[in-house]
Amino acid sequence: MALNTEVAADTNAPAITRILAQFVATHPSRGWSDAVDHEAHRTFLNWLGCAVGAARHEAVGAALSAVQMLQPAPQAQVLGRSDRLDMASAALVNGISSHTFDFDDTHLKTIIHPAGPVASALLALAECQGASGRALIDALVIGIDVSCRVGNIVYPEHYDRGWHITGSTGMLGAAAGCARLLGLDVGQTTMALGIAASQPVGLREQFGTMTKPLHPGAAARAGLMSALMARQGYTASPRALEAPRGLLQVVSSKCDWAQASDELGQRFEISFNTYKPFACGIVIHPSIDACAQLRAQGIKPDQVERIELRVHSLVLELTGKKEPADGLAAKFSVYHGCAAGLIFGQAGEDEFSDAIVNRDDVVALRRKVVATVDESIDEAAADVTVVLRDGRSLRVLVEHAIGSLQRPMSDAALSAKFHALTDPLLGVARSAELIAAAWSLGDSADLHGLTALARP
Amino acid sequence: MALNTEVAADTNAPAITRILAQFVATHPSRGWSDAVDHEAHRTFLNWLGCAVGAARHEAVGAALSAVQMLQPAPQAQVLGRSDRLDMASAALVNGISSHTFDFDDTHLKTIIHPAGPVASALLALAECQGASGRALIDALVIGIDVSCRVGNIVYPEHYDRGWHITGSTGMLGAAAGCARLLGLDVGQTTMALGIAASQPVGLREQFGTMTKPLHPGAAARAGLMSALMARQGYTASPRALEAPRGLLQVVSSKCDWAQASDELGQRFEISFNTYKPFACGIVIHPSIDACAQLRAQGIKPDQVERIELRVHSLVLELTGKKEPADGLAAKFSVYHGCAAGLIFGQAGEDEFSDAIVNRDDVVALRRKVVATVDESIDEAAADVTVVLRDGRSLRVLVEHAIGSLQRPMSDAALSAKFHALTDPLLGVARSAELIAAAWSLGDSADLHGLTALARP
Repeated sequence: MALNTEVAADTNAPAITRILAQFVATHPSRGWSDAVDHEAHRTFLNWLGCAVGAARHEAVGAALSAVQMLQPAPQAQVLGRSDRLDMASAALVNGISSHTFDFDDTHLKTIIHPAGPVASALLALAECQGASGRALIDALVIGIDVSCRVGNIVYPEHYDRGWHITGSTGMLGAAAGCARLLGLDVGQTTMALGIAASQPVGLREQFGTMTKPLHPGAAARAGLMSALMARQGYTASPRALEAPRGLLQVVSSKCDWAQASDELGQRFEISFNTYKPFACGIVIHPSIDACAQLRAQGIKPDQVERIELRVHSLVLELTGKKEPADGLAAKFSVYHGCAAGLIFGQAGEDEFSDAIVNRDDVVALRRKVVATVDESIDEAAADVTVVLRDGRSLRVLVEHAIGSLQRPMSDAALSAKFHALTDPLLGVARSAELIAAAWSLGDSADLHGLTALARP
Repeated sequence: MALNTEVAADTNAPAITRILAQFVATHPSRGWSDAVDHEAHRTFLNWLGCAVGAARHEAVGAALSAVQMLQPAPQAQVLGRSDRLDMASAALVNGISSHTFDFDDTHLKTIIHPAGPVASALLALAECQGASGRALIDALVIGIDVSCRVGNIVYPEHYDRGWHITGSTGMLGAAAGCARLLGLDVGQTTMALGIAASQPVGLREQFGTMTKPLHPGAAARAGLMSALMARQGYTASPRALEAPRGLLQVVSSKCDWAQASDELGQRFEISFNTYKPFACGIVIHPSIDACAQLRAQGIKPDQVERIELRVHSLVLELTGKKEPADGLAAKFSVYHGCAAGLIFGQAGEDEFSDAIVNRDDVVALRRKVVATVDESIDEAAADVTVVLRDGRSLRVLVEHAIGSLQRPMSDAALSAKFHALTDPLLGVARSAELIAAAWSLGDSADLHGLTALARP
């Protein structure tokens, strides 16, 4: 028998579980600027396109086959497929799908992908409950605020320790959003957050396997169920987040409590959300962007003698694969990224297909990329000079890549990204209808029209 | 953008995910002594009685109501109730039920309650799949071996940090057991453990709330689903347990890897499982035991002038409530424990009811208990002297309470405990049938007879 009664350091943490629950339960509908509300639509649109686009991936198929062993009731739509599942299973599978291409949104302050856990839980619940689009958008803003604020409390120590922060904070965002959508009161919402606190999901060791996208999916499911249980009177500690043996002190040695309440209800973390224009790790984006700009200036691949790339050491450390054998490996090759940017002007899932990665002209061009480390260049920047056969050279310096907070993707670019993801499954016309439905989500009476459009 | 590439200390950990998977997938059926096989039956019986006994508790009712929102298919039985649920939800609810009274089994080396996550997942899966009782017992021994060995690797640091180790290792035991029951090969079993590794459940902050018993329930569910997903080809890191950013280095600074493989397949952790004779925290058990022994020697409450209790300081620190107001508080009162032992000779759920706790004779007797701290007495011991009105005094020294490894509950005592838990729900005759079915589980062709008996 061994019983240890010592407790961790901070016994005086503010009551953030309750503070956040109060915000979730009582903040007014659309109690934010039009810019925040528009950002919520952008977040939803981007998440939806990613989920539909990956629907045929084998990870989604495997998860779906497992869930079907439970003979689930047809309550909610699996995006991009004909299947319907009970709402918790739909939250799981759509959450997996939305993160499978690693093409979803990023809260850069914490590297959280916030929509996966939150939107996946909310759409399934909203569809099943007949909630309005406005209620969903409200819950999305609020749920993402909760998970990202919690991320701000513990980042970076929590992430450095090995947690995949998307899934280890996402269940709280999903619980918060679902509590809001269910109309739970402050006490019940406190319990929902408390129940979810015991269920963090995700290890960085899983990166590169199907279990990485399981993290937002399982977090979506856990958060949704936590809210349903709280509604039925299930109890948890009202200090489940902040107590010495509560979630945050257990999973992080850094706990900056003020991040929970600073400008709560005034500053919304969804404002800091970003969307990837390119279907690969974010450190390659400035290099792709620079090469796409060179293409826009009229440079053709057959004019190129070599491409001189100067980047921070981290870029080569993370994405230094010179000869990627397939699409997955190419996502870790800044060389392939440069070739794709110059040849195609873009780098979506298509440009990371095995066929493209092994196409002769692509292979030839990436071999002309000469990368040099320059620590004076920021991790988020790239300095690219193309030297042409005729002796001329052109230089493009990208300080902030397209898709960064400083240079956000335009609404049109987000729609185009959506088309590229969904046209192969839904066709161009249906994709356009789905895009329109997503842009006007806040005005829709319910979600049935939107989910029907996401069924091929 | 912030990307951190540093890793934790131990990059050379042995491949324990794979080592354990190899054991799970290939160890022979009943590849252990008769004593181990009998202990598995005792573990199952004790778990089953606890789950049936708590079936009407409000925690179970609330969880069930939430799950029913998913309109689950009737694949598996909820123990002690008429409801049937899909197998994953049945695993969840039975797992909650089995730990609600805190009366289930304890692996004392780690304070893991091993049966909750493992048996709850296995019974639901076995019933649904039509597996034999032998297959279930095999999977129970093997699943518990995995979760307790993992517990041995990280205990006590992991527990001290604030994790409720039952749920944060239990999903691995459940995944291992279900992988075994499904007949997964070594590779698939490695994936099942890997998928489960991303889903630890449980914080000690939740003690005293319904979320405490959620931990084994959610772990059961997560482990079962991990095995089903692995069977469908879902992938995870094959080093999900031991890698620098794998589960164990993320949740513990103590990682004694040898605990995974030492005498693997020869020594079985289920041999070290224990069962509580009393429905309260284990530090009170020696005092109750001593008082019950005094009762057996013929001492009546009205003869008592006072009860002098000498115990380790931890006993009063954890269970020093002098005037418990209700049954829940009485579980933290060694004074009530002594009174119950002397008056009733036992301390099951009934002796912790609000009515008994407030009965005049019980209150009067517990006020006669004088507790003194004596650090020379072990935490697992108690030194009790009863001073009678006639001036005589009798002393009982309990070095190891009934229910400890040194003085295990007899099979007859386990059956009696089962009756006390289940007779009010099932009746005496049905309880006796269910007990008989549990004792002969290893010989039964399937689980349908047993689960039908557990339906009131």
